[in-house]
Amino acid sequence: MANTVIPILPLAPVERIVRKAGADRVSEDASIELAKVLEAYGLEVSREAISLAKHAKRATVKEEDIRLAYKRLKEQIEDSNKSV
Amino acid sequence: MANTVIPILPLAPVERIVRKAGADRVSEDASIELAKVLEAYGLEVSREAISLAKHAKRATVKEEDIRLAYKRLKEQIEDSNKSV
Repeated sequence: MANTVIPILPLAPVERIVRKAGADRVSEDASIELAKVLEAYGLEVSREAISLAKHAKRATVKEEDIRLAYKRLKEQIEDSNKSV
Repeated sequence: MANTVIPILPLAPVERIVRKAGADRVSEDASIELAKVLEAYGLEVSREAISLAKHAKRATVKEEDIRLAYKRLKEQIEDSNKSV
């Protein structure tokens, strides 16, 4: 996965997140992998936020859309696990 | 939440993620909110990755640590929901 696609998020700030969590050393591949994980998660939250904005008849995605999207995604995970 | 802390991730690429998901317009507050959501999630994955690297007696966080951390975090969410 690491060498197939260039992630949208720049590696330096992603590495900074790993260091903020307490890491002394971080391989470049680790930062690339985390950048991809965060991009995928960001796309998921964004798609939900866009559908919430459309529902509110707005063309602009706002802070409240991201917040509710994030909340709803967590609930969806809970629901899907309940049905397992 | 939007005005309290400056997020680690730069806003331009975070906004690009929302646009990649299909948004025409994105408010600045929405990008800030998503940057914070991604930073919080990134810290969570990183903490787990650091503990996996330590377990493997390594000082460097590697790609495999991020991958396994991400997988384990999803499993933890599943387990915690099962016990509800």
